Amino acid sequence: MKTLITGGAGFIGSQLADYLLSEGHEVTVIDNLSWGKKEFLSHNFKNPKFKFIKLDLLDKNALTSAIRKATDTVFHLAANSDIMRGTIEPEIDLKNTTIATFNLLDSMVKKGIKKIFFTSGSGIYGDVGETYTDENFGPLLPISMYGATKLSAEGMISAFANLHDMQAWILRPANIIGPRATHGVIFDFINQLKENPKKLKVLGDGSQSKSYLYVSDVIDSVELVWKKSKEQVNIFNISSKTFVTVKEIAESVVKEMGLEKTKIEYSEGSRGWKGDVPIVRIDNRKIEDLGWKINYNSKEAVRKTIRVLLDKDGDGKV
Amino acid sequence: MKTLITGGAGFIGSQLADYLLSEGHEVTVIDNLSWGKKEFLSHNFKNPKFKFIKLDLLDKNALTSAIRKATDTVFHLAANSDIMRGTIEPEIDLKNTTIATFNLLDSMVKKGIKKIFFTSGSGIYGDVGETYTDENFGPLLPISMYGATKLSAEGMISAFANLHDMQAWILRPANIIGPRATHGVIFDFINQLKENPKKLKVLGDGSQSKSYLYVSDVIDSVELVWKKSKEQVNIFNISSKTFVTVKEIAESVVKEMGLEKTKIEYSEGSRGWKGDVPIVRIDNRKIEDLGWKINYNSKEAVRKTIRVLLDKDGDGKV
Repeated sequence: MKTLITGGAGFIGSQLADYLLSEGHEVTVIDNLSWGKKEFLSHNFKNPKFKFIKLDLLDKNALTSAIRKATDTVFHLAANSDIMRGTIEPEIDLKNTTIATFNLLDSMVKKGIKKIFFTSGSGIYGDVGETYTDENFGPLLPISMYGATKLSAEGMISAFANLHDMQAWILRPANIIGPRATHGVIFDFINQLKENPKKLKVLGDGSQSKSYLYVSDVIDSVELVWKKSKEQVNIFNISSKTFVTVKEIAESVVKEMGLEKTKIEYSEGSRGWKGDVPIVRIDNRKIEDLGWKINYNSKEAVRKTIRVLLDKDGDGKV
Repeated sequence: MKTLITGGAGFIGSQLADYLLSEGHEVTVIDNLSWGKKEFLSHNFKNPKFKFIKLDLLDKNALTSAIRKATDTVFHLAANSDIMRGTIEPEIDLKNTTIATFNLLDSMVKKGIKKIFFTSGSGIYGDVGETYTDENFGPLLPISMYGATKLSAEGMISAFANLHDMQAWILRPANIIGPRATHGVIFDFINQLKENPKKLKVLGDGSQSKSYLYVSDVIDSVELVWKKSKEQVNIFNISSKTFVTVKEIAESVVKEMGLEKTKIEYSEGSRGWKGDVPIVRIDNRKIEDLGWKINYNSKEAVRKTIRVLLDKDGDGKV
């Protein structure tokens, strides 16, 4: 089957490319290489079923030309994934998530492509404390441009699905971590400590409590949802039932790096920054009912990610 | 109080301007005059508390310059309001609703303006048949770019409210009709029959059943919501509990125009066009609990609108 992955050189996209190729599919990756890295894909460059195109989704004409008519499913992962940056430069999210998604949908219509898989995010639910959000939760009051523009993309995908008889699969994942991560809390802590092992600065008081998913569990969910759910628009939360605090992550990174005298400095307030959702509780019963089983709970996912990013657990491949 | 109305030369915006002026507020209207008309405002041009600026919200620099720092509340009504057009030219909604709203929010931040009132729409709920949607309804699966981009605007308003300590009031109204309407089903039927009294073409089989609100009832709700609801983000459906079918509207227009031999031609299918929601049922209990009382049920609103647009009921002023 011919597939296209936007953001396919990124953390999750490149591992999805590996998976789809392993299943015998043809994979074309489109990526502007802002977050993505060619080296995440270099092992596929000689595969005749693989193609890489450096392209920004904001370049609509080039995008429309690049998409092949025979594409079966587009896996749309390209977005601004740096939530904090979007709180300071909100136009980043508007462009790279909302407008990019619109351009993609419009190009798909022009080429007659009918299936889109989209990674949204639990950020669309906003800050609702200990409330478990299922897929029907409302009102949706995102507190960051990341959440707002993921929501905008969901809405446009739903509209295009109706207007052009398309089918859509939308995932709303918790925090995804693992090899090839290009940013995020664990990545940031390791980098800080490599620079100065004596001090670790934490945004917020460390009490933020969220669910973390290991990337291979996410890839499993993509396969499951894509193959098994048949509605016109299929929305699935993905999350484990377990949580880890930022304080626990900080302490784990320090421990795994073998440091002893590191001073962990917390800042005030329960949230890391203004667009940060401090408590994330996602109801995952719908995808569990479909048959999804995770291999790593939040604590295991965090520990494995730390070790992989420190090169303690193999080469970082899934 | 200094107020700003985007889309303030339009059907609803111009009547909101009249109301705010009558309450003693200063009103600056920004409108690109794509749907809006200067003559809707001409009676205010000599009022020292009124100012009109022809401006497109897509011109961000001009917009930021035009907004006065001392503005208390921005009433954001500018949008693409032609749902059908957006199904053929989806970029119209992306630009005039999503990007325009982003530009406005960003300009408000630059000028330190903290309050925004936004007219969203029941289109965000998508096509859910006879289900009554309350403000917490989900999932939100709009079937038109109109619905999708109104949802995107809600999301961005919510994000900006959190990021910049703003306060927001969001209305989700049913179909609004009345004097100064520039398009919509009644407007269209009257124009068709003025051109050819023998035949009226109806999109769909006429069974579409929706709630219609007379514009003065909407203005009352704006006042109520703006003054009485105090959350950071306040969302209210506005709708009556009554419905009218398109068939009933067609027959009423024919009758009010004194025509006898008009042939009403219906087309196939229960919806007018692909992005049309055929059955709209909106739960209005939240705004009723706030004290809102409508003066016109759907049938009365339709009849009054037909008569006003035919100049049978005064000069079209509210």
